Amino acid sequence: MKESPIRSKETLRLWLRMLPCVNMVEQILRARFREHYGMSLPQFDVMAQLGRSKTPQTMSELSRHLVVSSGNVTGLVDRLVKSGCVIREPSETDRRVQYVKLTEKGHNELEDMAKAHEIWLTEIFHVLSDDELAESNRRLMRVKASLLQFSEIRT
Amino acid sequence: MKESPIRSKETLRLWLRMLPCVNMVEQILRARFREHYGMSLPQFDVMAQLGRSKTPQTMSELSRHLVVSSGNVTGLVDRLVKSGCVIREPSETDRRVQYVKLTEKGHNELEDMAKAHEIWLTEIFHVLSDDELAESNRRLMRVKASLLQFSEIRT
Repeated sequence: MKESPIRSKETLRLWLRMLPCVNMVEQILRARFREHYGMSLPQFDVMAQLGRSKTPQTMSELSRHLVVSSGNVTGLVDRLVKSGCVIREPSETDRRVQYVKLTEKGHNELEDMAKAHEIWLTEIFHVLSDDELAESNRRLMRVKASLLQFSEIRT
Repeated sequence: MKESPIRSKETLRLWLRMLPCVNMVEQILRARFREHYGMSLPQFDVMAQLGRSKTPQTMSELSRHLVVSSGNVTGLVDRLVKSGCVIREPSETDRRVQYVKLTEKGHNELEDMAKAHEIWLTEIFHVLSDDELAESNRRLMRVKASLLQFSEIRT
C-alpha cells in the first residue's frame, strides 16, 4: 500500500481526535448517569439492550450484544436485579436456562434514561449544524461498513 | 433546551455509529500490535508518551498523560521494563523520585510501531477521501474544543 505522507498524517490526526472525543463523551455520560440515576454506563447498556429485544434474553444472548465480557455481564445483571430493574426467570421448558427481563420499574427507568441520554447527546454535539450531523452520519455509516470487512472484527 | 426530535434522533444515531467505529478501530489495532509486536495498545500508548516527552517522566507525570489509572501504569511499565524497552532510573537530586525512560531498544521498537500504526490507520480509514479526511478533522477539532468546556471533563 502506497499512501502520501500528508494523507497518512491527516489520518493519524483524525484518529487522535476521534478517540479523545469519544472518551470525553463517555466521561460526560458516565458522570450524568451516575449523578441522575445512580447507574453506570454499562448498566444502562444492559437495560437498553433488554428494552430493544423483542423476546426475553438469556445471559449469553445478552452478552453477545454488549461489548463487555460475559463475566462482567453477570455482575451487571446482579446489580440491576438488586435495584429492582431486572429479574431473572428460569425458562419453562428448560430449567437450566435463565432469562433476563426488565421489570415494570426497569421499563420506566429505562424510558427516563433513554430520554435523558438523547437530550445530553444533543447538548454534547450542539456545535454541529443539522447538515453536518446528517453528513457525518452518512460518512460514519460508510466507515462502519468498511470496518466490518476487516478480519480482526468478530461480529 | 428545546431541540427538534429529528435533530435529537440524528445525534443519537451519530453517537451510536461513532462509538462502535472507535471500538472496532481499537479492536483492529489491538489485534495487530499483539500479533506484530507482542504489545498491548496501552503499552504502545505508554511508549508513545515517553517518546513524545522531551524530558524523562516520573510515574505521576506519565499517568497524567494517559487515560489508564496510575495503578495500571505501574503494571504496564513493569512489563515494558521486563521486555527491555523501558528503564526506571532514580532522580539524581531526590532518590525517592523515579524516572521512566525509553531504552535504545525501546526507541527503535517505538519507531517501528509508530510507522505501522500510521499505515494501519491509513488502511482502516481508506474509505474517506482526502477532502473528507480534512473536513472531518476540522469538524472534530471543533467538537473536541467544545467537549473540553463541559464541567464533567477533568483535564
